[in-house]
Amino acid sequence: MSGDSDRSLASIFLFKGLSEDALRKIEERCRWRDYAPQETIIDFKDDSEDVYFITKGVARVVNYSVSGREVAFDDLRTGSLFGELAAIDGEPRSANVVAIAPSTVATMNASTFRSMLEEHPPVAIVLMKRLAQMVRLSVERIMDLSTLGANNRVHAELLRLAKSNIRDDGSAVISPVPIHSELASRVSTTRETVARVLSDLTRKGLVKKSGNSLILLDTERLQDMVEQFRGD
Amino acid sequence: MSGDSDRSLASIFLFKGLSEDALRKIEERCRWRDYAPQETIIDFKDDSEDVYFITKGVARVVNYSVSGREVAFDDLRTGSLFGELAAIDGEPRSANVVAIAPSTVATMNASTFRSMLEEHPPVAIVLMKRLAQMVRLSVERIMDLSTLGANNRVHAELLRLAKSNIRDDGSAVISPVPIHSELASRVSTTRETVARVLSDLTRKGLVKKSGNSLILLDTERLQDMVEQFRGD
Repeated sequence: MSGDSDRSLASIFLFKGLSEDALRKIEERCRWRDYAPQETIIDFKDDSEDVYFITKGVARVVNYSVSGREVAFDDLRTGSLFGELAAIDGEPRSANVVAIAPSTVATMNASTFRSMLEEHPPVAIVLMKRLAQMVRLSVERIMDLSTLGANNRVHAELLRLAKSNIRDDGSAVISPVPIHSELASRVSTTRETVARVLSDLTRKGLVKKSGNSLILLDTERLQDMVEQFRGD
Repeated sequence: MSGDSDRSLASIFLFKGLSEDALRKIEERCRWRDYAPQETIIDFKDDSEDVYFITKGVARVVNYSVSGREVAFDDLRTGSLFGELAAIDGEPRSANVVAIAPSTVATMNASTFRSMLEEHPPVAIVLMKRLAQMVRLSVERIMDLSTLGANNRVHAELLRLAKSNIRDDGSAVISPVPIHSELASRVSTTRETVARVLSDLTRKGLVKKSGNSLILLDTERLQDMVEQFRGD
């Protein structure tokens, strides 16, 4: 069961800056549900157009190819939203979403979501920024897939994960240590390639494990390695 | 020189549905300029955050990798807008834009653009739909790059270009005939691969040229070929 504090949208990035009163009214337009680990939140074959807000827990988004092969995935934590593309454009979903920790999720139907965006233009602007970032990130991944080999894609992904934690001395911490299969999925390669690249980097003194963190010891050199290959 | 009729935003998809009066006011907030073929409209090294509307002509968007290699491009025609990502999120640009026909372009600065979106929520919703479509298209290309070989990426791109023109008998027309180097750029392969794939398809009776059009004779079979490989 979730407590009352889980039934608040205050943690959702989209609603930062709204008054408490406006937030309460939006909360009243949501349905709330708890999910156990491994429980499906969205099945991509559903034709629902709801938007989901994670107010507690972790959910995993998994994209599938036409034939059902798992292609890429991403983990979303407290404060995230998902399902917004279908709510905006009415097109079918392309991913499954499964809870991977006990989670509390608020759901809003598509037409309520669109009315809410029209009533609160600053919220619409925050959502547009998020969509713009999604476009930029995708374009970056397309460039990586087009121009880099698998090894360098792993390097580029490590830098992406470390981006917000680079220290003055050029080192950076990724915490927790990324799981090999997750890294592999993000850059369209195999677990074995990820394991090999990480042991190469460890041997070269560019990466070391410390407790539950992975430390990039020289992000500048890693960046050089990626850029050199992007030019090939 | 452009005539008065080129100095109207009525053709821009973003503004469909606005009253004439609202449109006039938005037009008054733009600067207008004509470009000759090959003239640069945006240099990606500029730090401007303006948004551009093409009211006449054609502009080519070219993405570059860090080292300056041309990675992909797209042609935008009358009614399109570009530069909206930087206007929304304030991050640097990632592409050059060059006129490839005599063009008339209206420019709006970023803060005017954001105010305009707040004043006209339906326009904001249309822009969000466009961004959602850009995300979906990018995710599809990432899936193609991750799961398909170059040959099948060419097949998938032909189907994408034909999508809105599929007839009841399963054939489809792409007009004008796509230029080999443009197709190659879109799917991250070489001109030679595109030429080879097209002559294979012609030999198999799946594609034929007719005047300035390319006819896909059996889109269903082409789709089967792509999906079969997506499963590998």
